Amino acid sequence: MTLGETAQSRLSEIAGCSQAGEGVTRLPFTPEHKAALEHILSWMRAAGLDVHMDNAGTMVGRLEGPKGSKTLLIGSHQDSVPSGGRYDGIMGIVLGCLAIEKLQNECITLPLSVEVLAFADEEGVRFPTALLGPRTCAGTFDASALDLADNDGVTLGCALEDFGGDPTRLDQLARAPSDVLGYLEAHIEQGPVLEGQGAPLGVVTGICGIERNLLRFTGTTGHAGTVPMADRQDALVAASRFIAAVSDKANETNAIRATVGSISVHPNAVNAIPNVVNFPLEVRSISDEARLGFTDQMRKLGDQIARDRNLSFEMEQTYSQPAVTCDQGLSNALSAAVESAGHRLITLPSGATHDASAMSDLCPIAMLFVRCKNGLSHHPDEYANAADMNAAIDAIAGFLVSLTPDELAYGDN
Amino acid sequence: MTLGETAQSRLSEIAGCSQAGEGVTRLPFTPEHKAALEHILSWMRAAGLDVHMDNAGTMVGRLEGPKGSKTLLIGSHQDSVPSGGRYDGIMGIVLGCLAIEKLQNECITLPLSVEVLAFADEEGVRFPTALLGPRTCAGTFDASALDLADNDGVTLGCALEDFGGDPTRLDQLARAPSDVLGYLEAHIEQGPVLEGQGAPLGVVTGICGIERNLLRFTGTTGHAGTVPMADRQDALVAASRFIAAVSDKANETNAIRATVGSISVHPNAVNAIPNVVNFPLEVRSISDEARLGFTDQMRKLGDQIARDRNLSFEMEQTYSQPAVTCDQGLSNALSAAVESAGHRLITLPSGATHDASAMSDLCPIAMLFVRCKNGLSHHPDEYANAADMNAAIDAIAGFLVSLTPDELAYGDN
Repeated sequence: MTLGETAQSRLSEIAGCSQAGEGVTRLPFTPEHKAALEHILSWMRAAGLDVHMDNAGTMVGRLEGPKGSKTLLIGSHQDSVPSGGRYDGIMGIVLGCLAIEKLQNECITLPLSVEVLAFADEEGVRFPTALLGPRTCAGTFDASALDLADNDGVTLGCALEDFGGDPTRLDQLARAPSDVLGYLEAHIEQGPVLEGQGAPLGVVTGICGIERNLLRFTGTTGHAGTVPMADRQDALVAASRFIAAVSDKANETNAIRATVGSISVHPNAVNAIPNVVNFPLEVRSISDEARLGFTDQMRKLGDQIARDRNLSFEMEQTYSQPAVTCDQGLSNALSAAVESAGHRLITLPSGATHDASAMSDLCPIAMLFVRCKNGLSHHPDEYANAADMNAAIDAIAGFLVSLTPDELAYGDN
Repeated sequence: MTLGETAQSRLSEIAGCSQAGEGVTRLPFTPEHKAALEHILSWMRAAGLDVHMDNAGTMVGRLEGPKGSKTLLIGSHQDSVPSGGRYDGIMGIVLGCLAIEKLQNECITLPLSVEVLAFADEEGVRFPTALLGPRTCAGTFDASALDLADNDGVTLGCALEDFGGDPTRLDQLARAPSDVLGYLEAHIEQGPVLEGQGAPLGVVTGICGIERNLLRFTGTTGHAGTVPMADRQDALVAASRFIAAVSDKANETNAIRATVGSISVHPNAVNAIPNVVNFPLEVRSISDEARLGFTDQMRKLGDQIARDRNLSFEMEQTYSQPAVTCDQGLSNALSAAVESAGHRLITLPSGATHDASAMSDLCPIAMLFVRCKNGLSHHPDEYANAADMNAAIDAIAGFLVSLTPDELAYGDN
């Protein structure tokens, strides 16, 4: 049995720690989370790690290195979206444990300490906040989030306390940057790029910045039968021209992913010309400059489309998060390990946010993507095969072994 | 005081026969309808008409002509949409009464009988059916509609009976086509054309045929961050290209009014690529051939847009009503009367349906449009000015006087 097959088997087993229903539904600080920790505990122990759950509900497994050595952190999250898959998040924990287990089996001693971190909550589904674990590690957690409640009125603070954490002592979890070498996260790609390239693994260049904007075209309503086409100020026609142009313009460059995912129309009747159309525009890019340039171009385009037909156009940014660049030194080491394991080097940005985004406030980060079937994620049919996971375990193990004191020097910068 | 000012005053008074709230809300077979009939009765009596309410709740005022003479019908509806205006429907009844009153005042005797018909229900707001009055006149009323209920569970049959009608004797209301010369309806335009042309009156060429279609683009959903633009099958982008093209293509001809008034998107999340988009496409035209040609063109366009990106496209007709052409002889007489009254002749199609649509099953029809402010209708601010209504009264009176036995001969065809 390969370690990839072991990973597959472990992921099948822990998928049972789920609410009833299709796919995996495992929210933080629930009985399903508690059950999952038993599995994670056993994986960490099999890798020879010292294990404890910290006050933020993060399961921590530590392999102590030489006295005074710095620590490389490997992590991801245990939680899923509702009716999600078996790989998102949890796979990164399995692969981290198995990579260390592989080195232990091969009697390889590392010149550093290693920890595997199983964070409680990355998806932000139960509470209107997320990334509790990496934010406490990085010392960026805002304690006011403890008062945010789930749909049953239970606050994050109460849920954490009931789970065995201590919400009053979260600030003590902050790591000293000088103690940490970096953070590595393995994750399914959640997109179709690696599958399209026929490659099992990809080294992530960075995590896209995201901005969300609310847009509105306002025209004039009227009877669909009585207003001639030439006299119309149809807000849905204007919005349609805009949405098609967003796609065309984003297609002209590899740097941008731009999406309109929903739309609302007023008065919303089959025989009434729409006068108001609201919709969000989400733009992601690994380059903040490219993203800001694109958004600016779209604002001008919306103004132009509105002006052509005497409508009005508004565009307001509602959310913005800058891009995070993966560390060049760590990524080079990871790339070398991927190639040493016999795989073609594919580099790609991450369009989705990960625990690594929050960890980047603490230390250099690197990410390894594993090919997933049909680019599918957040879905019961989410799938990564054992051979690809085995390749990832080899690459992580090779990465750990390749780290030398010289390469680690940037950890102090 | 001009007769146009009298019309304005009468419309202000009858606007009080309304449910509380903004604008006019007068639904059929309600206390407001009952109160309105008292006003209409007084208008008809002032014009010297013999008045009765028929078994369909239509108030009928008749001016008897020479023995054996045929009858010209003038009508419209008393009901409004919720929070509607003061003119839609009811204005045609006022203007018909005042045109006859004008002839009576001028001691002009017509060589024909004339009736003014105040129909109960054209808007179809209270019951999921409409046009009871004209359909009983035309002998096309389907008695099964009597079982249709309003939101309180009251059927049309019960409401009519409580109102003093007799739902068991509606078939006796059918007119013999050989007794009827034609049907004239005056109505506010409900659109911006006459205002744009600076003309108070318009002679209607016909009532547009209507078809409604349900359309669907089906693509593939995915994470807005992880799927590169080139790999997307975004159903909203496809629908947007289609909706913009519908507007462009309809703008290329005067024959078509095409509208997408609503749209629904799945999964409808800011960060998910839409995989299913449903929307209705309503197409109206005075030419059934042009309408069918346009719809066919749009179906091919939808197929093409879908094919370009490997989506699927479906389009299903859910409703269809052919166009009705106004009678050439009656319209010529009406046009001559408009010009004799000193107004430029504007001809235009009606994009909206009217009582005249159903009356066309009985007899030749003609329609006179009156300019309305800002093209606004079905709205509390709906407005026609007294001078324009005075022009309409002159035109209707001139039309009635101009009808000679020769011009009426087509009534037998």
